[in-house]
Amino acid sequence: MRSEWVARRRGQANVTQMHFARQGVITEEMEYVAQRENLPPELIRSEVARGRMIIPANINHTNLEPMCIGIASRCKVNANIGASPTSSGLAEELEKLKLAIKYGADTVMDLSTGGGDLDEIRTAIIQASPVPIGTVPIYQALESVHGKVEKLSAEDILHVIEKQAQQGVDYMTIHAGILIEYLPLVRHRLTGIVSRGGGILARWMLAHHKQNPLYTHFRDIIEIFKKYDVSFSLGDSLRPGCLHDASDEAQLAELKTLGQLTRMAWEHDVQVMVEGPGHVPMDQIEFNVRKQMEECDEAPFYVLGPLVTDIAAGYDHISSAIGAALAGWYGAAMLCYVTPKEHLGLPNAEDVRNGLIAYKIAAHAADIARHRPGARDRDDEMSRARYNFDWNRQFELSLDPERAREYHDETLPADIYKTAEFCSMCGPKFCPMQTKMDAEALSELEQFLAAQPTG
Amino acid sequence: MRSEWVARRRGQANVTQMHFARQGVITEEMEYVAQRENLPPELIRSEVARGRMIIPANINHTNLEPMCIGIASRCKVNANIGASPTSSGLAEELEKLKLAIKYGADTVMDLSTGGGDLDEIRTAIIQASPVPIGTVPIYQALESVHGKVEKLSAEDILHVIEKQAQQGVDYMTIHAGILIEYLPLVRHRLTGIVSRGGGILARWMLAHHKQNPLYTHFRDIIEIFKKYDVSFSLGDSLRPGCLHDASDEAQLAELKTLGQLTRMAWEHDVQVMVEGPGHVPMDQIEFNVRKQMEECDEAPFYVLGPLVTDIAAGYDHISSAIGAALAGWYGAAMLCYVTPKEHLGLPNAEDVRNGLIAYKIAAHAADIARHRPGARDRDDEMSRARYNFDWNRQFELSLDPERAREYHDETLPADIYKTAEFCSMCGPKFCPMQTKMDAEALSELEQFLAAQPTG
Repeated sequence: MRSEWVARRRGQANVTQMHFARQGVITEEMEYVAQRENLPPELIRSEVARGRMIIPANINHTNLEPMCIGIASRCKVNANIGASPTSSGLAEELEKLKLAIKYGADTVMDLSTGGGDLDEIRTAIIQASPVPIGTVPIYQALESVHGKVEKLSAEDILHVIEKQAQQGVDYMTIHAGILIEYLPLVRHRLTGIVSRGGGILARWMLAHHKQNPLYTHFRDIIEIFKKYDVSFSLGDSLRPGCLHDASDEAQLAELKTLGQLTRMAWEHDVQVMVEGPGHVPMDQIEFNVRKQMEECDEAPFYVLGPLVTDIAAGYDHISSAIGAALAGWYGAAMLCYVTPKEHLGLPNAEDVRNGLIAYKIAAHAADIARHRPGARDRDDEMSRARYNFDWNRQFELSLDPERAREYHDETLPADIYKTAEFCSMCGPKFCPMQTKMDAEALSELEQFLAAQPTG
Repeated sequence: MRSEWVARRRGQANVTQMHFARQGVITEEMEYVAQRENLPPELIRSEVARGRMIIPANINHTNLEPMCIGIASRCKVNANIGASPTSSGLAEELEKLKLAIKYGADTVMDLSTGGGDLDEIRTAIIQASPVPIGTVPIYQALESVHGKVEKLSAEDILHVIEKQAQQGVDYMTIHAGILIEYLPLVRHRLTGIVSRGGGILARWMLAHHKQNPLYTHFRDIIEIFKKYDVSFSLGDSLRPGCLHDASDEAQLAELKTLGQLTRMAWEHDVQVMVEGPGHVPMDQIEFNVRKQMEECDEAPFYVLGPLVTDIAAGYDHISSAIGAALAGWYGAAMLCYVTPKEHLGLPNAEDVRNGLIAYKIAAHAADIARHRPGARDRDDEMSRARYNFDWNRQFELSLDPERAREYHDETLPADIYKTAEFCSMCGPKFCPMQTKMDAEALSELEQFLAAQPTG
């Protein structure tokens, strides 16, 4: 459907949603998003114009079903997929994409660093994806110079960015905020720099004693993004990699620069979201969200977790879903999932499933806590199904119906138990949901109580 | 070791830790707990005397390794085990106990309602357990009248309570706070009463139009508890079973009564903790914790989750770990775990493991957020091991070392990879932890930067 929409815009100097929004135009994408979110189209337009919401929608990603990221709308979830040199390939990555969409990923990032032809994997993913695709172009730029960081030039990077923009990538992580003068600030950290892209730029700056080329060429990137409507996802290269390093001077210095870059992109009507940590103790999460809003003029905040402890290897989807739920409640617009394999290896299909469901829980809990209209409707319907022992309806309403059914059927597989007034947890006599007190019995009780002498 | 300690106390009219604490005595149990918590023994004594901490330690549970529950100490985690009539038996329950202890359960509740001889299962569990064992005696009382609620008498219940106290149960859930006059308050709920014990008492009161026998006989229970030092775990029969019902009039009315019962038990130096919800949206959790502290004079709060959404069937260990982490941060003293099977069936061994680790994460994250001294030490050690690519040390420091190792080895099993500077997630060239910037390079950079013209 988008082919027609974008056909009319081709050839214009600036085709971004923000550009149209600021001219007062409600695009087809905005209409579509408004319907999905059950919000007025004019609200979508004004939020996009204000920069508080983005619609990542490259004009070359025509099979995209547009969605939005911003505090006025539902909290979103991103799933990372991507092959690494030691694991996986095209077929498996397409399988992960399918799974990610099945389990409710709102956007997907292809973080491939190897395992096949990167362009082939990326274009296959874009063509197969109804959700926005994000990338980190510095990875491919590094591949283009055979992994030799010091050989990288600004031209190499811009070349890769333009190629990926042409391919239809909807948003790109650009690590332009890590400046050479911030590098000494990581000296007191336990885990230094833990952003892959940020680490590449840090090594480049250290080798050349020159400023970050993504920073010095930020205007060039803006020009590319205007032509295709690629959204910035400003990378937080200096995000903390452990609780010890959270909210430190290095992180906050970069955040200030990300705010400046946000405003620079906005001057050219280019859409921006800002990436955030990482590893943060629970009591510092609200500060992190508020600080980002303040420094970046409320550009959508896109956080990775954060993990609220460092010792949960194998269960970091849980330790980070706790932080993500809090971040979403405080106002983060999108949560980047973390899988159980984080810190240990490349996730497989089952890890993608587990990571995503953990994050759907976090985002949904955040929507409820923010009192978004209708956010609790599905929960209430589930509660009615529970009270009525309608097991099939309970499975349907679950975030992962197959898993719910599988767990129930593990002990009571027969069809007859799908209407039974119990499950194997408490058995036939002890299910508390059987405690039905009908209206008549309660009325009788009230009359009885009213007739008692008080005091 | 406890046999000697308790031998000297036998025959005294009141053998509770609170009784000794209020007489200024630091018991062996308090000394032991002080060592475990790295806190002064006098602080433990004064907190127990004040009622803000309990040491659940039945004098007949002599193989117990005493622990404490209270806001001055680490946040604790409880695991429920127990056979139900449709599933499991003694051998499997003992296996679950072993697992629960292995994965760090601080206390264990035996919620058996069938599947074998209840006394046999309970005594076997107590004898095998170094951690406090809790029970809900109303379940066995109901079994003793063959499941016919209306046949239950106060004498039946007191008989079971005394028997279980003799057997060495350390704390018991007593649903004394649900009063007959509160029953009409559940009329507007979606899921009515979801406490198993509470439901039994509600049906009894509705059948007899008489006050809750646990309430009318609360003094008798106190007398039993004094003799054995059983701690009250005051049950929240009217806890919400879904987000819709959270923090409603019924729940808060019962909480007020739980406060009165707390003070009544304290008059007799009997230890008390208070149970809490359940299903609560994130933005109501702080209110729930503060309200309990206020109504119950800061008696330790022992919460079940709470779940922050109702639609996560199959993943309720995650939806509830989010709420539990928040509750612990706000001041809950113990978190009752929820397994992935919640609402679907009786948990098996793997469910116990997954539920417990989720809750160890929540409790630990809460300790960090509360800034307990030393709470982050293990996290920092983990971060150093990560930065140094010491994989074996990382596994050791994880909450579930076997799981961490298994996940890592899934893609890179060979021994050589235990010192490799990468894992399969990013591959050999992209691991961000490789971005080591040595002190010398940073000093050089600083000199270079200092020599640049400013502005």
